[in-house]
Amino acid sequence: LVDHGLELLSEEHCLELLQAEQVGRVGVSFGALPAIFPVNYKMHGGDILFRTGEGVKRRAAFEGNVVGFEVDRIDPVNREGWSVMVVGFASLMTAPEIDALGPVDISPWAAGERTNLVRIHPELISGRRITTRM
Amino acid sequence: LVDHGLELLSEEHCLELLQAEQVGRVGVSFGALPAIFPVNYKMHGGDILFRTGEGVKRRAAFEGNVVGFEVDRIDPVNREGWSVMVVGFASLMTAPEIDALGPVDISPWAAGERTNLVRIHPELISGRRITTRM
Repeated sequence: LVDHGLELLSEEHCLELLQAEQVGRVGVSFGALPAIFPVNYKMHGGDILFRTGEGVKRRAAFEGNVVGFEVDRIDPVNREGWSVMVVGFASLMTAPEIDALGPVDISPWAAGERTNLVRIHPELISGRRITTRM
Repeated sequence: LVDHGLELLSEEHCLELLQAEQVGRVGVSFGALPAIFPVNYKMHGGDILFRTGEGVKRRAAFEGNVVGFEVDRIDPVNREGWSVMVVGFASLMTAPEIDALGPVDISPWAAGERTNLVRIHPELISGRRITTRM
């Protein structure tokens, strides 16, 4: 089935877009229920890094589970934009891993202690450009 | 565990925000893999409506499955914003259901035939305001 109006992006282009943005959305399952939430992230060595708090559910969700991660830039007025989708394993980074990283400039937005650093290692990367041109 | 910097929003407030926005992200599972993609949506009678194409996986994913839906407005510069999260059953609307709706002004962005109308009936709605104030 041809999907007119959705141009597939190369993996290289997807990685460039991931490098350039700073806000993404993480998709996880809590039991059978899907959840999506925005995060402030940074790419590092091909992985997606973001900080999170001590939320029990959230923490459990990142213990080696497969998660989705999405970044997009959408212009509803001109009906144009793109989205990049990543699927990968998420893990909480250990203290030695964080030390080995060196300084990482990722602040969470929300105030309060968010010292956990989560890493998503991409296994699948796909992207599409949305256009109203046929 | 207290989550400083994340103010919970009332369900009423969440519904107002859902009514006001036009772009959201849908989270589904294809097999065991999570996927997130942006959609142009409209609220109608408390349900979330959006159009989709003939993608087989996507179509299958909306046949009565539980999906996640998220809308946010994030300001990375001032580190402020909010997000609203919905969990609900998704269904492809039948022709009689679409006729009964009357005219619905939801265009997909992408060109091409996107005549399927998907409805998400919210079962859970939650929202939070993100702030850097303590």
